[in-house]
Amino acid sequence: MLDPLASGATIGILGGGQLGRMLAMAASKLGFRPVIYTPPGDTPAVDVTTQSVIGAYDEWAALERFVGLVDRVTLEFENIPTATIDWLAERVPVAPDAYALRIAQDRSDEKNFLNAHGIATASFAEVSSMPDFDAVWFEPPWILKTRRLGYDGKGQARIAARDPELLETAWHGVGAVPSVVEGLVPFLREISVIVARGADGTVRCYDPGENVHETGILRRTTVPAAINSETATAARAIAERIVTALDYIGVMGVEMFETTEGLIVNEIAPRVHNTGHWTLEACAVSQFEQQIRAVASWPLGDPVRHADAVMENLIGEEIGRVAAIPEPGVSYHSYGKASARPGRKMGHVTRLSPMTEPTR
Amino acid sequence: MLDPLASGATIGILGGGQLGRMLAMAASKLGFRPVIYTPPGDTPAVDVTTQSVIGAYDEWAALERFVGLVDRVTLEFENIPTATIDWLAERVPVAPDAYALRIAQDRSDEKNFLNAHGIATASFAEVSSMPDFDAVWFEPPWILKTRRLGYDGKGQARIAARDPELLETAWHGVGAVPSVVEGLVPFLREISVIVARGADGTVRCYDPGENVHETGILRRTTVPAAINSETATAARAIAERIVTALDYIGVMGVEMFETTEGLIVNEIAPRVHNTGHWTLEACAVSQFEQQIRAVASWPLGDPVRHADAVMENLIGEEIGRVAAIPEPGVSYHSYGKASARPGRKMGHVTRLSPMTEPTR
Repeated sequence: MLDPLASGATIGILGGGQLGRMLAMAASKLGFRPVIYTPPGDTPAVDVTTQSVIGAYDEWAALERFVGLVDRVTLEFENIPTATIDWLAERVPVAPDAYALRIAQDRSDEKNFLNAHGIATASFAEVSSMPDFDAVWFEPPWILKTRRLGYDGKGQARIAARDPELLETAWHGVGAVPSVVEGLVPFLREISVIVARGADGTVRCYDPGENVHETGILRRTTVPAAINSETATAARAIAERIVTALDYIGVMGVEMFETTEGLIVNEIAPRVHNTGHWTLEACAVSQFEQQIRAVASWPLGDPVRHADAVMENLIGEEIGRVAAIPEPGVSYHSYGKASARPGRKMGHVTRLSPMTEPTR
Repeated sequence: MLDPLASGATIGILGGGQLGRMLAMAASKLGFRPVIYTPPGDTPAVDVTTQSVIGAYDEWAALERFVGLVDRVTLEFENIPTATIDWLAERVPVAPDAYALRIAQDRSDEKNFLNAHGIATASFAEVSSMPDFDAVWFEPPWILKTRRLGYDGKGQARIAARDPELLETAWHGVGAVPSVVEGLVPFLREISVIVARGADGTVRCYDPGENVHETGILRRTTVPAAINSETATAARAIAERIVTALDYIGVMGVEMFETTEGLIVNEIAPRVHNTGHWTLEACAVSQFEQQIRAVASWPLGDPVRHADAVMENLIGEEIGRVAAIPEPGVSYHSYGKASARPGRKMGHVTRLSPMTEPTR
């Protein structure tokens, strides 16, 4: 295990979006100096620190400059090329590592990994060309998802039946690229566990949150989730098994479906997660600080909650609500993005209320 | 009243210390871009934003550059020359204004102002030279305090008796500058109210905190204070009277003594205040965000608490505790200062626990 970073050390963050921004602010809270590495564009993380390097993820001269500025590296974004992570890791400690990213970047690898560790997923089959649909062993309805680079409902299509025309439309709809077909899961609710694993192997889970998506984008996370304590315990156990199996260092978001037959993992995200934003206000140590603590080889914080919380995303023009008359217990966040395009996450609000039950 | 600032606008902050740092982070949380103006030195606020201007408070060329970068100006520090504030206010909206600063910069003016508005203070008398001690109408023990520029117990001396030698020592001890002599107040406890007044005149008070000082420096603030509800109501009423009388915009810390005869105001600070740091974790809207909301002409947040809190300063080498094994409910802050000189505020910790009583 690496030595704990001294206060005043620099922590590099790959990615310049809102997650990088909140990670940078958490680093500053602990007395570290964040340095952002990001491709050019609307990069709100750059605004909350003195030092940033602008470059593509394969721009080696820029990455070389970044390496010269930082003591450790972490990331806000799972789709950074693993070649970049490997290259960085030869020069400076990086957490999480390329192995976790490699698994999470490919839906098929991810599900195979989960199944291999005894964790249930939806039924799935790889589809690399139209004829592969014939070999899918379970019946529609299906969701077709690209193996790589899908997020917020992008790269996905529903397929109601084994109809050649529907298959053709879906296949071209996702770009005719290597994909997986998943069986539609009849779920009671979607929950997620934000789990952290420290440099010393300690695992800490926040209370599971309950998520509602609209048009493929997270609308709202409510904590505590309306699940019983056995389900909460099972959800934490799954999250712990995943980060331990990956020998992971950092924070991970694990999305699950509660079904009548138990929990199914939908997706893992090897980074801080939108469904964990509520931890900023409802916990003494947020998911962002937890990630910084992990990469700095500091002891993880206690993820105990001191309030109930409902986090709601502000999408597109909804960001205008930020300045509205404040209700009691409401915290607003604006990510400082320049353009409020439809479907874009511009900020969020968290409503706090007194605890209804203690952390499990 | 000015129009509410749009998200993405810039807010200038005079002062580069930890209060400026936490103000800048609060501005970023709301989507504003903070710009720090600070004299050179160990300036932790500079590290959490892209834009800073380094200059003395009478360096007009640097101030001119600062004005060109910002839409509004606020401050972290009450001892900025009012000439600077006046000069800035001719060019860009500034809150709070020079009037409040002028009152707060002089202990005699401050007490006269408070008394004129029916607010009790310790007995006091101006002392501008040794012979003035003879005219002090109340008996020792006294505290001699410089009228200007005292903080954290600096510029103060105790005087036990009307003894020429003791007077001489104290007078030269504080630098033989215009001062006030105060009667020692036999207080039950020290409390403070963090009050905010918005651009629309709305006043919002956080719950009073109870403060313990050691060697003139704040050690700890506990919320709620161990006072009854009548005293809490009276404390809020005093704070509200002060900010209203000053037509103040922004956050103010009002330090009071609870005595057997009621509340006495010890000192006002026209800025965010060390005794309000607990609001970062225990309230949805912190004192720092409240200050930014006020200067941005946004509606003030609701100051309701969702947890009990104990804030403790980390002074000098105590900052080493930041990385220690975390207790449940503890939030650590390091200000990222380069040198941990004795007596220097380097960070703080806030311990949260479930609410024992609702906000009054």
